[in-house]
Amino acid sequence: MAAGAELQVFPAERLQAFGAAALATLGLPESDAALCAARMIDADLRGVDTHGIFRINHYSQRIRAKGINLRPQVRAVRENAVTALVDGDNAMGHVVMDFATELAIRKAKDAGLAWVGTFNGNHAGAGAVYSSMPLAHDMIGMYMTVANANHMAAWGGVELILGTNPLSVAIPAGEEPPVVLDIATTMASYGKIKLAAQKGESIPVGWMIDRNGQPLTDPKRSSEGILLPIGGYKGYGLNVIIGMLAGVLNGAAFGRNVVDFNKDVATRNNSGHMIMAMRVDNFQPVEEFKREMDRVIREIRGSQRIEGVDRIWLPGEMEYELVRERRAHGIPLAPIVVANLRQLAGELNLQDRLE
Amino acid sequence: MAAGAELQVFPAERLQAFGAAALATLGLPESDAALCAARMIDADLRGVDTHGIFRINHYSQRIRAKGINLRPQVRAVRENAVTALVDGDNAMGHVVMDFATELAIRKAKDAGLAWVGTFNGNHAGAGAVYSSMPLAHDMIGMYMTVANANHMAAWGGVELILGTNPLSVAIPAGEEPPVVLDIATTMASYGKIKLAAQKGESIPVGWMIDRNGQPLTDPKRSSEGILLPIGGYKGYGLNVIIGMLAGVLNGAAFGRNVVDFNKDVATRNNSGHMIMAMRVDNFQPVEEFKREMDRVIREIRGSQRIEGVDRIWLPGEMEYELVRERRAHGIPLAPIVVANLRQLAGELNLQDRLE
Repeated sequence: MAAGAELQVFPAERLQAFGAAALATLGLPESDAALCAARMIDADLRGVDTHGIFRINHYSQRIRAKGINLRPQVRAVRENAVTALVDGDNAMGHVVMDFATELAIRKAKDAGLAWVGTFNGNHAGAGAVYSSMPLAHDMIGMYMTVANANHMAAWGGVELILGTNPLSVAIPAGEEPPVVLDIATTMASYGKIKLAAQKGESIPVGWMIDRNGQPLTDPKRSSEGILLPIGGYKGYGLNVIIGMLAGVLNGAAFGRNVVDFNKDVATRNNSGHMIMAMRVDNFQPVEEFKREMDRVIREIRGSQRIEGVDRIWLPGEMEYELVRERRAHGIPLAPIVVANLRQLAGELNLQDRLE
Repeated sequence: MAAGAELQVFPAERLQAFGAAALATLGLPESDAALCAARMIDADLRGVDTHGIFRINHYSQRIRAKGINLRPQVRAVRENAVTALVDGDNAMGHVVMDFATELAIRKAKDAGLAWVGTFNGNHAGAGAVYSSMPLAHDMIGMYMTVANANHMAAWGGVELILGTNPLSVAIPAGEEPPVVLDIATTMASYGKIKLAAQKGESIPVGWMIDRNGQPLTDPKRSSEGILLPIGGYKGYGLNVIIGMLAGVLNGAAFGRNVVDFNKDVATRNNSGHMIMAMRVDNFQPVEEFKREMDRVIREIRGSQRIEGVDRIWLPGEMEYELVRERRAHGIPLAPIVVANLRQLAGELNLQDRLE
């Protein structure tokens, strides 16, 4: 954190209750408000601070600008036993994705496997929140989305035509934490670059280029910059594929028709997402699978380390430990986030909910 | 290519006929031999030279060492309408994956979506060959496999416990070539590094580290080296997830129980793969989807380029053009590959098939 930036710690329950109250005051039905707040706090608990309660100021701007439909009819417009296309009716993204994920889980319970795509959605927070929902049903989850702003170019390009298009996959284990991948397909997020600028640090070669294709290492110049994909052309390809599976396939935005949700809070986003749920016992008896997952997890964790490296982490393991820690000891928020929450609380006359 | 390495061009049909004859002479049933040869040539046509006919010398060693079951019973041992677990019975990998992919397509035709996993398989060539098979049915294909040798470590590790675990996804388009991603989750393949060593070139920082975690840029030292994942911990996570979905879920090898197929041609590989097929018309009318894919493809290809960049390529587009070119003008092979094929032809008394 920037020098002098002291974190303030809030109990998860209090932040969640505040979030629910704020969204309800802004006009969301109580149940939708509670659900959105819960999904935001899920992200904060996992340590994905950029996708949690931090976003509520942005969401509130969008709601006030009538950029969100507060009385949506979220529903499947095409459907069979194992797939569905869900029209989010411009609802809060969390409401759309919760509906889609529950639908995928229900279908996968019956059929073994389901893939649900959504259009007319909005930013839904952290991907791992949704990919992890099938875990409790001994299912694997997979989630992809088209990011809500374009900060990347095609490989060889300089036009901002692609987003950070993330992928999340969650796989159950036994005694070990589930393995949960949640990655953007860019080397770094815009948030990470802004943080480096705040700290006065430079960013590594490989994170950004400028419009001439030259490495950009001064994060203060990020507005001229283009995020780079992981693995060069490989990450570019993965990014495009995710955009097509979560966007084009669902009739959702991808490419130039993505509306930058930071610059425009009123225009319909038509954000696209997909969620897959698949029962483990299609392939292996659940307990056998979990035992083997535990064995493999321990093998990787226990494999020989580079000298000086304390520990090898499995995907999602750090986040799993953070959830336990933050549930017990609260969620630390940066001063700017606390100030923004206080401001929103003041506007909505909910100051007491934060104290 | 190395200096003085003149390529020799063969018609695809001749190489395929030679491959089929060689495998049949080695003991494969005629139909399996023809199928394996066809899948190898599919890879060569796409320009994935490391996964095509080049491999036949290795396959023949494995067959002679009784490392392959020549009379396998490839079959689904668990199955429902949308998933199957296929026992490859230690058949040639191409035979197993062809069976699995056709099964996935058949199920997806009826149900809309299918995921088929395999165990007891072997190296099956290029992933794009299988992920692309659903395209002709207006389906999306997805393929993952656990690589047959471990050249990568966990993030922070130095033990060779992970392979290049690749991912391939194919999405149909209309007038435009289908979009086909086919990537290893390491920055470079071992083959690429060996090629650099042959040429006397150094390799970029970021491709390999040594056992102390330091960058390794001399490809002649590759035996001490560890391949690095794309995007650091992100590619490591993706690699592990692929290993679990293609390996653990199918009861196939992953981690320390992967047998290095280059060092040991006799021991059962228990190679694991997965293939998914999904109908586009679950979500959009086919023609509408294809039109939108064409539009997005053209938008990306036509987006503003870095000065000096001639063209922006979509994933799989270069390979698509190579297929047309190589079908028309033949497949160029390096002298060492030709020499190896000639040697095998001599051993099997099939010299005339190559001329």
